[in-house]
Amino acid sequence: MSRVELSIEGMSCDHCIRAVRTALEALSGVRPESVAIGSAVVDFDPAQTDEAAIAGAVTRAGYRARPRGDAA
Amino acid sequence: MSRVELSIEGMSCDHCIRAVRTALEALSGVRPESVAIGSAVVDFDPAQTDEAAIAGAVTRAGYRARPRGDAA
Repeated sequence: MSRVELSIEGMSCDHCIRAVRTALEALSGVRPESVAIGSAVVDFDPAQTDEAAIAGAVTRAGYRARPRGDAA
Repeated sequence: MSRVELSIEGMSCDHCIRAVRTALEALSGVRPESVAIGSAVVDFDPAQTDEAAIAGAVTRAGYRARPRGDAA
């Protein structure tokens, strides 16, 4: 066997950002303002949803989300 | 509209690592020794493939790969 070490550009968390954004956009009354590695800012209509439902959608997408300020 | 800021854990490049590893494992005569953010070490049988083909497989997976040591 031979061996090569590759240098690879473009490995980033864009997959995660897209996955979280998609999960948020699927909710009624929700508009993601920004999604970054480790956090998201989300505008929502409280007549249609709430913080727990929003965090739950992200959790179902495979992450662990909680409204910032909640106890860990 | 209301606004919530979510804290999100688990956003990592595991997607990328899996994508690169899968692309490498699909090649005959290739065994990825390690895949990390930005690089991979790959053992290969030179009777079956070569460095350019290996880098090409990673590039087709959506990244930009070149054997380390090549000019940029």
